[in-house]
Amino acid sequence: MNARRWDTTRVEAFSDGVFAIAITLLVLDIRVEPSDYEDLLQALLDEWPAYLAYVTSFLTVGSVWLAHHNLFTHLRYVDPVLLRLNLLLLLAAGFLPFPTGVLAQALHESDEAERTAIILYGATALVIELLLAAAVRYALTRPDLTDVEPADAPPPQPHRAWREALNSALYGVAILAGVFIFPKLATFGYLLVAIRGVLVIGGEGRLGLRGLLPR
Amino acid sequence: MNARRWDTTRVEAFSDGVFAIAITLLVLDIRVEPSDYEDLLQALLDEWPAYLAYVTSFLTVGSVWLAHHNLFTHLRYVDPVLLRLNLLLLLAAGFLPFPTGVLAQALHESDEAERTAIILYGATALVIELLLAAAVRYALTRPDLTDVEPADAPPPQPHRAWREALNSALYGVAILAGVFIFPKLATFGYLLVAIRGVLVIGGEGRLGLRGLLPR
Amino acid sequence: MNARRWDTTRVEAFSDGVFAIAITLLVLDIRVEPSDYEDLLQALLDEWPAYLAYVTSFLTVGSVWLAHHNLFTHLRYVDPVLLRLNLLLLLAAGFLPFPTGVLAQALHESDEAERTAIILYGATALVIELLLAAAVRYALTRPDLTDVEPADAPPPQPHRAWREALNSALYGVAILAGVFIFPKLATFGYLLVAIRGVLVIGGEGRLGLRGLLPR
Amino acid sequence: MNARRWDTTRVEAFSDGVFAIAITLLVLDIRVEPSDYEDLLQALLDEWPAYLAYVTSFLTVGSVWLAHHNLFTHLRYVDPVLLRLNLLLLLAAGFLPFPTGVLAQALHESDEAERTAIILYGATALVIELLLAAAVRYALTRPDLTDVEPADAPPPQPHRAWREALNSALYGVAILAGVFIFPKLATFGYLLVAIRGVLVIGGEGRLGLRGLLPR
Repeated sequence: MNARRWDTTRVEAFSDGVFAIAITLLVLDIRVEPSDYEDLLQALLDEWPAYLAYVTSFLTVGSVWLAHHNLFTHLRYVDPVLLRLNLLLLLAAGFLPFPTGVLAQALHESDEAERTAIILYGATALVIELLLAAAVRYALTRPDLTDVEPADAPPPQPHRAWREALNSALYGVAILAGVFIFPKLATFGYLLVAIRGVLVIGGEGRLGLRGLLPR
Repeated sequence: MNARRWDTTRVEAFSDGVFAIAITLLVLDIRVEPSDYEDLLQALLDEWPAYLAYVTSFLTVGSVWLAHHNLFTHLRYVDPVLLRLNLLLLLAAGFLPFPTGVLAQALHESDEAERTAIILYGATALVIELLLAAAVRYALTRPDLTDVEPADAPPPQPHRAWREALNSALYGVAILAGVFIFPKLATFGYLLVAIRGVLVIGGEGRLGLRGLLPR
Repeated sequence: MNARRWDTTRVEAFSDGVFAIAITLLVLDIRVEPSDYEDLLQALLDEWPAYLAYVTSFLTVGSVWLAHHNLFTHLRYVDPVLLRLNLLLLLAAGFLPFPTGVLAQALHESDEAERTAIILYGATALVIELLLAAAVRYALTRPDLTDVEPADAPPPQPHRAWREALNSALYGVAILAGVFIFPKLATFGYLLVAIRGVLVIGGEGRLGLRGLLPR
Repeated sequence: MNARRWDTTRVEAFSDGVFAIAITLLVLDIRVEPSDYEDLLQALLDEWPAYLAYVTSFLTVGSVWLAHHNLFTHLRYVDPVLLRLNLLLLLAAGFLPFPTGVLAQALHESDEAERTAIILYGATALVIELLLAAAVRYALTRPDLTDVEPADAPPPQPHRAWREALNSALYGVAILAGVFIFPKLATFGYLLVAIRGVLVIGGEGRLGLRGLLPR
């Protein structure tokens, strides 16, 4: 079994690269047209959806990076399954700049466009969240990848499964609120989920690998 | 001879950077024009070639990264020849976003344009594959670059040479199918080759350096 | 408390990635329109605001990277608070390409636009500076994150607080000079602050962690 | 004196990031307009200046990275002067995508535009070369930064100074040939200098730090 596992070093370096670029490309979507320089202040203020989208997506990718960082702190090796899950996670995270740009533009447009953009963004964030949870869940079942001795590994605790779904559920609620109540509710909902993702990192450190699962 | 070899650390870091950026720049080719926000859902659905191209190229670069990662797991040093082969490999991989964008656009256009785009994309992928095989093949001939003791190195096995050409052959078949039968066959063929590249990583770990050659 | 701290390795790698990309994306804002190739020399000369903005922002991000590098030289661990401060710092640094592009364009436009662009740029640089100072200040209060033994840590020196505010104050002065006296004063002011940031690194090494605070 | 020097690890990581991004951004300048998809093959062939510029700049940045890698192989520490020289080197290397795009476009335009673009590109490459030589030359004078014992350091060899200027001289000759004889001579000259830069790495390994100076 050991022949099929690798050190985590390069997986972390490659993932860090993709996260860092995905998070930095977001700024390219904020643009002021040359014709708008006559009243630049107004043009900059009109760009508020782009700033909101930038901050939301930056914190979303940032909280995914924190969770990824937390997961790999507990791992010493990766196996082929985890490598593939990680690659899918990067595929979804690397896609986020597109829904971000669409959302920023849609906030200038009709409610209909806004609803569509909200579903696109929320679905992408949801997929990222589910892939992250799948990676953590898989790592939990493979004590040979971690530094923890098998005997120290906590037994499975199925009754806490509902907690694992919380982050994903929050995205679901935000999407529904945006579609059926008021589109901008979803946008601010995404921001709040991302802020929450950045804020909960402190507690996760205490709980070990299991603590990494979304709550 | 030792004076002409270097640790692999920085080569890996630089290569990881180029792969990570090439894979992330792909998303910049997915765009919705401001005029299309009147029916955003339709506009997003019309972008399916861009999504297909994004996923295909992401998995293509991803599988190249996996093969590169696998190769360097077996290496402790690089020599000037390997450094140059690696640089050519990065040159080809860094070029992939261009054929990806052309292919995504061509899927909206005439069959003629699609055929041309397919050849461009397939040829780029083929060159990447051949450079990767050349790097692995070269590393096989230089036991002083690996961690393996010369005595442990397996003797050359020329009768398995046909296996090494399989990935390249698959690209050749996909190009021909796209040109002479139906253009979209090639596009899906490229996706399948990339998925295969991501899926075969598990077995390669067992076979040592030789197992890295494309099959 | 130890359960809530992590090695700095990956935080540095991720931050390096974001800084490296933010600093490199700046070049994308320098563009010559195809129609201007009839008199390319003149067109290139007309782009001087873009070069000025590129150099200014490159040195600004470069000096922030130097300060960040200096800070983490003294740290062995990061805790959740520092992780979050670092993420906010990256958010602000990753945003800088936008004010850079606006400033470069505004230097071709009216004084009014230039003033607005100067405030946007200066405010972003100011926020980066304050977040950097906050990160250093926080690290000073947490000897368990550093390599330094608690007994060796210097006692707080409140009478030097005015020195810590100098870099931020310079940005404030440059903004005011640009708004009330002459817009281009601010642009050159920003360049000078960045050059100063690159030049003072030598002395900081002698002063230990406290020496990292802006003077 | 030791208080003013740092490990090279993060400087290498940051530089690798900037080089990797500068080298990868080059592909964004290769574009086919949607209107050109009617005859895509012709449009792709017409883009030959963009491919030439991509390969030239990729190999130019690649050979700079190789020289940088070679230099840092000999170094264990960096001091403030080297940090600043490195930052200026990155500033110049990060600028290269701009002259690359201008050159690619100018090859479609008048000889006059081509000459201007050639000077811009050659001057940038020359500055990169001079900064690289300055960094190597400075490192030669500081044995406390290297792994080499002071006693082992070779004495200065002024009679070889002419060799150090060769790469810079080649750029000078290429610029003059392009301006006074035929513009395209310069473009191919730049490609040849870059290929040479990639090919000479083998010998440099044998010569120690001094062997890194351009010949």
